Amino acid sequence: MSNLLKEKLQVINMGIPAFSDALKQQGIATTQLDWRPPAAIPLETREYISSQSKTIEQANQQAVQKLLAATPHWVGMGRALDKIPGMKSNLILHSGPPISWQRMCGPMQGGVIAALIYEGMAQTADQAHALASSGEIEFAPCHHHGTVGPMAGIVSASMPVFVVKNESGANCSYATMNEGLGKVLRYGAYDSEVIERLKWMERELYPALQAAIEHLGKIDLKSIIAQALHMGDEVHNRNRAATSLLYRHLAPAVIESCSDRGLAAQALNFINGNDHFFLNLSMAACKASLDSAGNTAGSSLVTVMARNGVEFGVQLAGCGDQWFVGKAPLPDALFFPGFSKEDANPDIGDSSITETCGLGGFAIAASPAIVQFVGGKSRDAIDYTLQMYEITIAENSIYQIPALDFRGTPTGIDVAKVVEKSILPFIDTGVAHKEAGVGQVGAGVLSAPMEPFLKAYQGLAEHIKTE
Amino acid sequence: MSNLLKEKLQVINMGIPAFSDALKQQGIATTQLDWRPPAAIPLETREYISSQSKTIEQANQQAVQKLLAATPHWVGMGRALDKIPGMKSNLILHSGPPISWQRMCGPMQGGVIAALIYEGMAQTADQAHALASSGEIEFAPCHHHGTVGPMAGIVSASMPVFVVKNESGANCSYATMNEGLGKVLRYGAYDSEVIERLKWMERELYPALQAAIEHLGKIDLKSIIAQALHMGDEVHNRNRAATSLLYRHLAPAVIESCSDRGLAAQALNFINGNDHFFLNLSMAACKASLDSAGNTAGSSLVTVMARNGVEFGVQLAGCGDQWFVGKAPLPDALFFPGFSKEDANPDIGDSSITETCGLGGFAIAASPAIVQFVGGKSRDAIDYTLQMYEITIAENSIYQIPALDFRGTPTGIDVAKVVEKSILPFIDTGVAHKEAGVGQVGAGVLSAPMEPFLKAYQGLAEHIKTE
Repeated sequence: MSNLLKEKLQVINMGIPAFSDALKQQGIATTQLDWRPPAAIPLETREYISSQSKTIEQANQQAVQKLLAATPHWVGMGRALDKIPGMKSNLILHSGPPISWQRMCGPMQGGVIAALIYEGMAQTADQAHALASSGEIEFAPCHHHGTVGPMAGIVSASMPVFVVKNESGANCSYATMNEGLGKVLRYGAYDSEVIERLKWMERELYPALQAAIEHLGKIDLKSIIAQALHMGDEVHNRNRAATSLLYRHLAPAVIESCSDRGLAAQALNFINGNDHFFLNLSMAACKASLDSAGNTAGSSLVTVMARNGVEFGVQLAGCGDQWFVGKAPLPDALFFPGFSKEDANPDIGDSSITETCGLGGFAIAASPAIVQFVGGKSRDAIDYTLQMYEITIAENSIYQIPALDFRGTPTGIDVAKVVEKSILPFIDTGVAHKEAGVGQVGAGVLSAPMEPFLKAYQGLAEHIKTE
Repeated sequence: MSNLLKEKLQVINMGIPAFSDALKQQGIATTQLDWRPPAAIPLETREYISSQSKTIEQANQQAVQKLLAATPHWVGMGRALDKIPGMKSNLILHSGPPISWQRMCGPMQGGVIAALIYEGMAQTADQAHALASSGEIEFAPCHHHGTVGPMAGIVSASMPVFVVKNESGANCSYATMNEGLGKVLRYGAYDSEVIERLKWMERELYPALQAAIEHLGKIDLKSIIAQALHMGDEVHNRNRAATSLLYRHLAPAVIESCSDRGLAAQALNFINGNDHFFLNLSMAACKASLDSAGNTAGSSLVTVMARNGVEFGVQLAGCGDQWFVGKAPLPDALFFPGFSKEDANPDIGDSSITETCGLGGFAIAASPAIVQFVGGKSRDAIDYTLQMYEITIAENSIYQIPALDFRGTPTGIDVAKVVEKSILPFIDTGVAHKEAGVGQVGAGVLSAPMEPFLKAYQGLAEHIKTE
């Protein structure tokens, strides 16, 4: 003890980093051990998963290779009723895990109201509300129909959708066209401006883009995403480069296939005015990629993370279509003037499919502008991405991060690593007002909640036992 | 001395870093002093410049504020003969400082041959060669006519040029349209493929773009450059984002102003096929910005760095149109298959106007892909940019580098800092074959040579003395 006070201190700290920070400030050589207590799971489950680790690892390699090999292309467009498998005229799709009309959050109810007015099934919000409550309208998650939607994720029968095909696996995914920012359906707004924009998109934008993609045959989304990561996008909250690259492909085709010059210019101006236009295609590309890895017995690979504004749901490759849900968290956000965290709805939307595919928050080192947006530094963006390598199975050699010397993005979340290391997926997100009809109030970042991953971990153990 | 051998060593090394590297490898705490001997200049000149430092600093602040305040816009197009001040039908402009036909390097002579065939003044390379040697053709630097050209920088009377206006200062600059990669005039190629492409550009692309820019009125190049730096470009060797953003502005205007749909699509496809299309506009934007800072008595600000493939020339704000020249260096490059450094022409082109304006190699931290291209790491790219802050006067708050937490680019080279610190400007560049008619053989990076900066430093002293 007397020696301890004489010698130069060299400290290893385990646990709360504030201790080592204080020592460092006094010039004492201090190493902070990167350790945190494991999540609360029964020892029995942990030991069982551990005993199955070889089987799980093999299944994970099989699943992640399919994910990495996926080659999503935009191949066509059509009306939801004609294209989406199982779509019906009285069915409305929504983001996240299953939820009844009664339990839906404000922005999702707002989106449903917008859809019912858009479909001509209601004239006013009150009528739409009554119809939605009547039992005549059915609701289902987008994910049950190979579809993904940002924020409220509402898809109704007449809406035009992109068709995205994984040409390595022949599976398809679907998404509506992005409406832009401001008052829009996906953030729960439903006034006449919202409905008129959607009608213009159906009447004018959709035929122009449909003709263009028919003219081109297909557009390689994987290539666009790969390039966009070299250009400051993480293709979730930032899509400026991907939208620009898509636009470069589209413009000559729109001109050649659309005989109405005014309409062609309008269609291109609409896309030029919306840096998020690529988002829905990015999401559909991720969905088509992850679906190819689904239904791999024994795999702890996360194939879906999706939020309905009330609950955060997770699906695993090894657990079929089973949902594991927990309470959706509130994002840390930069709020638009006049709004604060009190106005914010809990996390909502299928857009976390990008993180599930190794993009978005997982690739945020490629997009420091997003972290700066919430007061962070470019070093923070790098650290967030580096941490995601801890909970993923592979690195995507096509999707690369310039600031990490073009290292592949951390890809394929392993629920076992999430639970055993207590490191949660990092997600970029937009923030909706909690009341129907208002719209977007901010944008930010958050960590996924632990609850659905804990349940998924236990669910996987049960699935393996019964197989 | 006996104590020295007992105590733990702590070393400061000055000079050759290999000494400190060796000590570090043995675990000895070593600090490498960032110092190098000053360049070889007479003590008298050094003392005189030092005695004038207050005047010089004031002049520099005045000059750099004009540079930072410049707002370059693309405002129109026209034929070189009609737009470029002092242009004549028997005048050919070239890159870099003045040079006679006889002293021109291979690729520049190749570019002149291409221009004479393009103008119909010669039918064959031999005829062009004879005409160029005859004395009937005059030659002058682009920079003498407010113009900039990449590589050989050849501009002849019929060539269409962009007109770029600095709307803060009302001065204009000019540049031809970028031809793309492969066999092109600017790299000294002159076969029929080159001439036909130039003729198509004059006949079809130029009227389409001229109509589009008239329709739009103007395009803000400063805004595009600022965004492109957030998207992986340094707008010299990488222009993919800037070209994409320009294209987004242009496409709807091309459609609305061009009644021939086939031609409109062809024009856009040409731009879409050439990620370097923005380069010439980037250079003209830099030229218009720097010209506003020119002719500031007493200023040591570098307003031009330009190479003619034989000599590297520098101009200063405080020395009017006087050139200070030295031998042009050979770039470190990645060579195309079949070529090596032996095939390379020394550094050539006006494109180092981008570095002079704080972009290109000065902003390379925004564009790690370029450093990777020659085997470097993203950390090297950051270090190159950080070093350029040592020799510049200001930071450009509009042009920012994401990886440096959106710090402004190092802007406004101070010749006194270059000479006194022995830190040379870092430049990105393309590499031309040394013989006429071949074309591009690689791309790379290099440091400017010291000689022109030493001469400029002494020239400044003489200018101040005589003013």
